[in-house]
Amino acid sequence: MPSFTVYKGHESGKVVKSTTTRPDLTRDEVLVKITASGLCGTDLHYHKADMGLGHEGVGIVQELGPETTYLKVGDRVGWGYEHNSCGHCQQCLRGNEVHCAERAMYGYADLDQGSMGEGAVWKEAFLFKIPDNMSDEVAAPLMCGGATVFNALHQFPIEATDTVAVLGVGGLGHLAIQFAAKMGCEVIVLSGSDKKKDEAMSLGASEFIAMKGAKEIKTSRPIDRLIVTTSAQPDWNLLTQVLAPNASIYPLSVDEGNFSIPYMPLLLNGLRVQGSLVASRYIHQRMIAFAALHQIKPILEKFPMSEEGINAAIKKLQDGEMRYRGVLLN
Amino acid sequence: MPSFTVYKGHESGKVVKSTTTRPDLTRDEVLVKITASGLCGTDLHYHKADMGLGHEGVGIVQELGPETTYLKVGDRVGWGYEHNSCGHCQQCLRGNEVHCAERAMYGYADLDQGSMGEGAVWKEAFLFKIPDNMSDEVAAPLMCGGATVFNALHQFPIEATDTVAVLGVGGLGHLAIQFAAKMGCEVIVLSGSDKKKDEAMSLGASEFIAMKGAKEIKTSRPIDRLIVTTSAQPDWNLLTQVLAPNASIYPLSVDEGNFSIPYMPLLLNGLRVQGSLVASRYIHQRMIAFAALHQIKPILEKFPMSEEGINAAIKKLQDGEMRYRGVLLN
Repeated sequence: MPSFTVYKGHESGKVVKSTTTRPDLTRDEVLVKITASGLCGTDLHYHKADMGLGHEGVGIVQELGPETTYLKVGDRVGWGYEHNSCGHCQQCLRGNEVHCAERAMYGYADLDQGSMGEGAVWKEAFLFKIPDNMSDEVAAPLMCGGATVFNALHQFPIEATDTVAVLGVGGLGHLAIQFAAKMGCEVIVLSGSDKKKDEAMSLGASEFIAMKGAKEIKTSRPIDRLIVTTSAQPDWNLLTQVLAPNASIYPLSVDEGNFSIPYMPLLLNGLRVQGSLVASRYIHQRMIAFAALHQIKPILEKFPMSEEGINAAIKKLQDGEMRYRGVLLN
Repeated sequence: MPSFTVYKGHESGKVVKSTTTRPDLTRDEVLVKITASGLCGTDLHYHKADMGLGHEGVGIVQELGPETTYLKVGDRVGWGYEHNSCGHCQQCLRGNEVHCAERAMYGYADLDQGSMGEGAVWKEAFLFKIPDNMSDEVAAPLMCGGATVFNALHQFPIEATDTVAVLGVGGLGHLAIQFAAKMGCEVIVLSGSDKKKDEAMSLGASEFIAMKGAKEIKTSRPIDRLIVTTSAQPDWNLLTQVLAPNASIYPLSVDEGNFSIPYMPLLLNGLRVQGSLVASRYIHQRMIAFAALHQIKPILEKFPMSEEGINAAIKKLQDGEMRYRGVLLN
């Protein structure tokens, strides 16, 4: 029976160490020895819940269930938000299993484990092989953060000639800049202040606009696609002025309220608001291959995989001080 | 110099008869003798303005400017919301001239004339030939109402296997039902009461749901595309429950405020909100051909093209009593 350390949320807000024991592996289950875990903004929604934290996992295959078919002991693998889906619904059949009604997702299923810990058991079909030229610590934040921004750019297909704006330079934004630039797009970064300008330009942006206090903004070209990674909703009256006709807006961060946008520009300019989740597996695999080919790498702050390390990382993320993605290492 | 009767808005709210005189035809201008005009909801925004009313015109070519190339005197033609565009911008070059920044649109240009009157002068390139098997009175409401609903279904391409819901059975909605049904789609109609059920079913719907007072709604299949034709915004908490993953919402009616939709279903279900305007010309032409092939016809209430007729039609539309599109006939 596999038994391993996990780090769980706690009502105190302080993550606590625990041990999970699972039955012997059945079917296509795989025991993974965790090497790295990213820390994502959505983890902050769960760090007071009694559940295994983390959904940006990377590790090494340690043991295989009897019906596994293509992984081998010793393979490096990663996983993300989704752990299972029904396999027979319309969404699964069209390769869109993130929208399967019976999907097993972080926060809703497999609450006894996560990517923060020393081990975890997942279905082979929901593990991704990590290429040799991608390190564990680079791979981990791509499993959700990378997959989320890549999905917005890939599922609703982008053209290399598009002008992409990235609103917010953080865990998602600094990856979106890199992916869009490597797709051939002109990338405009919209941020609060000038503070992150040099970094954004070095990641591939060709234009940087500080928005704080601006009554109007001007971009050198109209924006075809706007990736919104800020948690606070922006001033849409300001932003709709710089969107191209038929521009698309992708709100990626989580918000409890309504998404509200002025009606007339939506109609008159034929704007599109496109909700987008993490990637389904075929897109996730393409994301990994694309990132490996172009050496797209998160900028990391590293913490030890321990109570102290995880709590310190969570505090830094809560304080808005993470530059730009926290990663926990065993 | 062409001189013709036009009907203009007036601050009193009562449409008044007037005469417009235009210079001799130049370039590709065409003088059209008007036979029919539709009355559209957007005309209600202008009936107190000193401008020629109407943008759903049909008539007969009476005189041709020196640079016209393909119309002949006697041809039956129609026109809609757009009268001109720059011809050289990105949007014009990609056949998306309704989003040309220099477009000439109803309410903003050519205010001395409209489709309500006895004549009008338009550029040949913005006139559409009407097929022989389509009458003037049928063609008129298609020039904006038909083009608007068809564009939402065609520009953001629909699949014949999609389930399309039409919210609201009125001037736009009763055309959307017909177009979607003839495209092969299963059509679900969402309306306030059961009042229009028989008519909606006879137009091609296979399911009808009366929403008034409903705490929840159920459809036999999840909705892939939702065409919103009601002027009041619906209860999105109710509607998002019956949308398929990655469903698209097309808000077609005009509203001054914000478009607001609950954020979490937008994100979790990967919903799309797609602003959509009237059709550009290549889509408009396809709409006419499709309507002619399938004998898609607006249900009409006919009025004489006169002060009395137009004012009576406007009142009926304002009162919400039009079944379903008013047409004014010379």
